[in-house]
Amino acid sequence: MSVPATLVALLHGPDQPGLVARVAGWIFERGGNILHADQHRDMESGVFFQRVEWQQTNDSSADAEGFRSFAASLGMNARLISSATQSRVAVFVSKADHCFHDLALRWRAGEFSGNLVAVIGNHEDLAGAAQSYGLPFHHVPITTDTKAAAEARQLALLRELKVDLVILARYMQVLSGDFLATLQKPVINIHHSFLPAFAGGRPYHQAHARGVKLIGATAHYATRDLDEGPIIHQDVTRVTHRQGVEDLVRMGRDLEKRVLAQAVRWHLDARVLAYGNKTVVFD
Amino acid sequence: MSVPATLVALLHGPDQPGLVARVAGWIFERGGNILHADQHRDMESGVFFQRVEWQQTNDSSADAEGFRSFAASLGMNARLISSATQSRVAVFVSKADHCFHDLALRWRAGEFSGNLVAVIGNHEDLAGAAQSYGLPFHHVPITTDTKAAAEARQLALLRELKVDLVILARYMQVLSGDFLATLQKPVINIHHSFLPAFAGGRPYHQAHARGVKLIGATAHYATRDLDEGPIIHQDVTRVTHRQGVEDLVRMGRDLEKRVLAQAVRWHLDARVLAYGNKTVVFD
Amino acid sequence: MSVPATLVALLHGPDQPGLVARVAGWIFERGGNILHADQHRDMESGVFFQRVEWQQTNDSSADAEGFRSFAASLGMNARLISSATQSRVAVFVSKADHCFHDLALRWRAGEFSGNLVAVIGNHEDLAGAAQSYGLPFHHVPITTDTKAAAEARQLALLRELKVDLVILARYMQVLSGDFLATLQKPVINIHHSFLPAFAGGRPYHQAHARGVKLIGATAHYATRDLDEGPIIHQDVTRVTHRQGVEDLVRMGRDLEKRVLAQAVRWHLDARVLAYGNKTVVFD
Amino acid sequence: MSVPATLVALLHGPDQPGLVARVAGWIFERGGNILHADQHRDMESGVFFQRVEWQQTNDSSADAEGFRSFAASLGMNARLISSATQSRVAVFVSKADHCFHDLALRWRAGEFSGNLVAVIGNHEDLAGAAQSYGLPFHHVPITTDTKAAAEARQLALLRELKVDLVILARYMQVLSGDFLATLQKPVINIHHSFLPAFAGGRPYHQAHARGVKLIGATAHYATRDLDEGPIIHQDVTRVTHRQGVEDLVRMGRDLEKRVLAQAVRWHLDARVLAYGNKTVVFD
Repeated sequence: MSVPATLVALLHGPDQPGLVARVAGWIFERGGNILHADQHRDMESGVFFQRVEWQQTNDSSADAEGFRSFAASLGMNARLISSATQSRVAVFVSKADHCFHDLALRWRAGEFSGNLVAVIGNHEDLAGAAQSYGLPFHHVPITTDTKAAAEARQLALLRELKVDLVILARYMQVLSGDFLATLQKPVINIHHSFLPAFAGGRPYHQAHARGVKLIGATAHYATRDLDEGPIIHQDVTRVTHRQGVEDLVRMGRDLEKRVLAQAVRWHLDARVLAYGNKTVVFD
Repeated sequence: MSVPATLVALLHGPDQPGLVARVAGWIFERGGNILHADQHRDMESGVFFQRVEWQQTNDSSADAEGFRSFAASLGMNARLISSATQSRVAVFVSKADHCFHDLALRWRAGEFSGNLVAVIGNHEDLAGAAQSYGLPFHHVPITTDTKAAAEARQLALLRELKVDLVILARYMQVLSGDFLATLQKPVINIHHSFLPAFAGGRPYHQAHARGVKLIGATAHYATRDLDEGPIIHQDVTRVTHRQGVEDLVRMGRDLEKRVLAQAVRWHLDARVLAYGNKTVVFD
Repeated sequence: MSVPATLVALLHGPDQPGLVARVAGWIFERGGNILHADQHRDMESGVFFQRVEWQQTNDSSADAEGFRSFAASLGMNARLISSATQSRVAVFVSKADHCFHDLALRWRAGEFSGNLVAVIGNHEDLAGAAQSYGLPFHHVPITTDTKAAAEARQLALLRELKVDLVILARYMQVLSGDFLATLQKPVINIHHSFLPAFAGGRPYHQAHARGVKLIGATAHYATRDLDEGPIIHQDVTRVTHRQGVEDLVRMGRDLEKRVLAQAVRWHLDARVLAYGNKTVVFD
Repeated sequence: MSVPATLVALLHGPDQPGLVARVAGWIFERGGNILHADQHRDMESGVFFQRVEWQQTNDSSADAEGFRSFAASLGMNARLISSATQSRVAVFVSKADHCFHDLALRWRAGEFSGNLVAVIGNHEDLAGAAQSYGLPFHHVPITTDTKAAAEARQLALLRELKVDLVILARYMQVLSGDFLATLQKPVINIHHSFLPAFAGGRPYHQAHARGVKLIGATAHYATRDLDEGPIIHQDVTRVTHRQGVEDLVRMGRDLEKRVLAQAVRWHLDARVLAYGNKTVVFD
């Protein structure tokens, strides 16, 4: 006998009396048992947010469909994720390998739900690494001239593989607005962040020159505006004058691995609800 | 027209299907509107925990009473806190003043709900400080010989002042089991260590001798077993060989202030549910 | 018999072989005993930095003068601080009192070397608080029209009181370049910082709207370019969607207190060496 | 032309006037140029500690020998490490692979000085992983009955390979006092707890049962007394009631990787000076 599937619903919409009761009642009437539920009301905007996870007794796809209709009748936007369906994930890489190895090892250790179905690189440097984990590697080179064609090829690949989530693991290319609009799937990116912020290239050199005492990393959903999408997770690490630029780069790698992995885990566990340009993370 | 009162219920008991629905339904039927709700199910023990906060339309004391009966009918233990009733708080002090000043300033800045109604010292050192904040100071000296009588005087004072919470702000006396059993109110203590490491006296000397790289502080509810009550909050700070014992003591003061203030805020906001020897903090 | 004075020298200049030996030799020949010494060589710029603290046997002012000449003969820039001379400190305030209380209490607890000789406010709100600590309060109101005259009055006051360090404890006025050029003394400022950075007013509102997961604070030396001077210390604290703007403001206050106090302590202990637009902190 | 070698000396002994001058003078007279120097004086014990790193012009092995004699003449204990000699490192593993992968990848990324010359496992589980990094794997099974013989085989292997450092990367066996006494080389262990709390087995279960709000990891030199050797590095991570034992284990793995890697880096960079039961880390 199999473990009954669980469903997670991520809901948001204008607050109104009785939402918690109605949602819980709907689930209870269908024989579901709530395992976790977390609500939040944004006092400034009057928006209600909820993550609710329940164990079902009957067919999950019908429940998911039914819940979505029910939420719509309450004026709520709902995303449903079933434990019976594993997310299909693609990782985009360039030459840097630290985030890739970190993700691949965590996947192998069973830290993430979902399946890693493809590694797509604009360079071939990580083909061997992907192979050592038994992961299919796709080389899609990109130049300024071939960008449109390359993105079309990537999109075809992602569609064919039925990918639900793209992770940019230090993928050093900017995705076009068209790519994102066509993909219609979440894309998680990792980038370094500093106090104060440094525009332009070689940020660790700039940070060292400015004498900052903290370096940081931010994982966010990619949007048309580069580095401006909803933030999922951030962290920092302390640096002193004793660290040279090389040390900052090394420490930055550690931060990037950690912050990206946490953001991916939260996303795959259906704990991140994006709305407007921010997120609610039900950790 | 006054703002309608809100009620918070902290619930726990054996998990069973439909708890969330029943609780939310009970509130909804009485015209309440849930502002926040957070549930948790301890997978190991099968215990269900909930914090639910709602806005009422009708009389709050009746609701609190009604909810308690309702929870009992579900086999749940419930603690009800109304925003219409301000907690009455007493702070116990000895000679060290850092936690006391920190609490008093935060109270004045409006950071805490509840009223600080008494400062009780076994020494007179902080009488002037209490006065400068306009806080009544009570001197109850304690010696080994007079401990029972002194505790009786403290208990009489707390009863007379209708105190709901006692904060031990670096109060260097151990409360007897009888005192706690008679008081029947929560007592929050700050321990100058990362419990369970370095329980007991002179923890900074112990930490220095052991060469630890982090020192900590722990806020917990006081119980008969000293340093063994349910932990509410902990934090640490990094130390190196460059810090002598004196530096550790100074850095420890900062930690103690911060950790105690956070624990007190969570308690006063009805975010701490103690059960067995642990807490669930709905932060 | 008094404890012999200690001298601290903060040195920097182009690196050359034998610097450590020459400095240590100079001190040893004059009967001094080095208590602490910390050297650093910036690999990128080839600049040598040193903090050296020693116990003297003979007259300290002669030693300080002698060391400065000696350092100059090596092409080094030296700042000398004697434990026999207490720094004289002025705190500038407006209406917010959290940093002021924090500093005043730490001074009273003996956490800082140096003397707090004046509190200067452009509003009178903190006059009573200053008085409660026995600190002289000077009210120097400032409007756009009177700024030049007010700054002249402040400068006269600082000169008269022989102030060595100015702390801006949430002083909500920008100091003019002329003020700083005339003062010729270090000024430490505290401001909030975010990832990403937010220009303009109401930063906590902006941070909340952007959904940042960390809020920060930065203590730095004030320069003509507002918020751009050499950074002394930075720290961050984690926030979630559960915190409203009010919580962010409260948590920011705690950060500001902590970061400013640490920066002031390091400065007064002669641990901060500013050069170019950065600092070396010998912690 | 090759880069001139650098020498690091880690010194400690009773403090006396002129130590810094004498050490720096000795180096200068032999044409050496000090790159970094860091001194510390333990105020409680009167012990002087120094890490000094210099560039040589002449033969390094003669210098190392000469410095040792010179230090002895000052009553100081000195350890000399030359950049011309790469440390030879062995990693001991059992079945858990997270620390092993982390170390191997960092080695490949050039984060560590020294050479990883052997992986020694009491189980064969990580043989394939070692092979994928091109690292020689040695299987030395251990049972209660064969412990003495197995340790003899390990010692022979370490001697043959001229190993300078052993890393216990979640090696689930206790090394005997005889093993350590015979080896006479440093052994770094990672303990999955914030020592001294929760020493011994199943610390995550202990931590969960006690309801602590932080879990930690500790890297230390192994000594006869298990979990009692000099601490090199510690870190913690925040946990809440939402994390079950399984989450604590996963979060603990991340901590263990990070803390162990940092301790190994500091050791290989000759930044850790052990004395008595503590360390001075010149970070």
